[in-house]
Amino acid sequence: MTTAKRDAYTPETLLSVAVQVFNERGYDGTSMEHLSRAAGISKSSIYHHVAGKEELLRRAVSRALDGLFGILDEEHAREGRSADRLQYVIRRMVEVLITELPYVTLLLRVRGNTSTERWALDRRRDFDHRVADLLRAAADDGDVRGDVEVRLATRLVFGMINSIVEWYRPDGRGAGEREVGDAVVRLVFGGLRKAE
Amino acid sequence: MTTAKRDAYTPETLLSVAVQVFNERGYDGTSMEHLSRAAGISKSSIYHHVAGKEELLRRAVSRALDGLFGILDEEHAREGRSADRLQYVIRRMVEVLITELPYVTLLLRVRGNTSTERWALDRRRDFDHRVADLLRAAADDGDVRGDVEVRLATRLVFGMINSIVEWYRPDGRGAGEREVGDAVVRLVFGGLRKAE
Repeated sequence: MTTAKRDAYTPETLLSVAVQVFNERGYDGTSMEHLSRAAGISKSSIYHHVAGKEELLRRAVSRALDGLFGILDEEHAREGRSADRLQYVIRRMVEVLITELPYVTLLLRVRGNTSTERWALDRRRDFDHRVADLLRAAADDGDVRGDVEVRLATRLVFGMINSIVEWYRPDGRGAGEREVGDAVVRLVFGGLRKAE
Repeated sequence: MTTAKRDAYTPETLLSVAVQVFNERGYDGTSMEHLSRAAGISKSSIYHHVAGKEELLRRAVSRALDGLFGILDEEHAREGRSADRLQYVIRRMVEVLITELPYVTLLLRVRGNTSTERWALDRRRDFDHRVADLLRAAADDGDVRGDVEVRLATRLVFGMINSIVEWYRPDGRGAGEREVGDAVVRLVFGGLRKAE
């Protein structure tokens, strides 16, 4: 990372540096001193932009949450059969995870020690419930198997999707966003078993 | 946790306390002082049992790794069609994850800062490759779909299985070991789509 000039700093670039440091050191393990060194600007310059590291955390996880909740407002998530809406939401979740990789990574690592972290956990839970509702509706329509309890299925499907942040590297060498999205949709809906 | 008497301590009980502390504070964030306080015995008593915290980490992740690799030596993992062996291994992975929950949790959180952590990551990778080989063989047999790249499918399936450590609670209130195992096998092989 090159040291940026103070004048070049915007809340946006500061946020991007902060998220990287939070993901490397953990939020608890990050001090304003760490942020100042990583950003190459003084602590007082940081305080010019934000009230402290908790505000940076709130902005960062908001970006991830806005991306995820935004999906639910899209046309294909609102209209049509529940199973089709669910499939659309799952594919878009993969896209948001990959597009906003550092922000979603941070969101998934939040633990709940501060009020901002607890708020983020609550919002994550809300999102999980919205997707679980869709899965339940699809099961009620008879389009999705009914022999796996809805909350358990949601947890396992989220486990698969969220694991992407652990191994996805946007360096163009591994699978791309499209390939990962296709794989998740195929596995979540059809499983490994060969289609007859 | 009650404070145990020094005489009552065995390497086994010390290990169990250490794993709990490592999972709560992170391995990097745990000092011998933390271990001594949690175990209710002096640091010198701990050194009577082990050379230091890295030895405790090695023993703890070895327990998880021995459990996982042990699966591959079982009869149903060695004999029969690859797809059946794969299904057996996946079900047994869920059982080992749940039976050895704190040990596997620690294994999955290892980051690679010390030689013991790097060794654990290498062994995890070996295990992943063994399961990927089984998936590849099942695809070659035509029993498993060939339209999802093998390493990608393995990562996503492991993502689903490994997520269990994030939410499984052995308190008897949520899904039990058997129900989680059934759900994972159904979703991994059949997906959400209703069987015709």
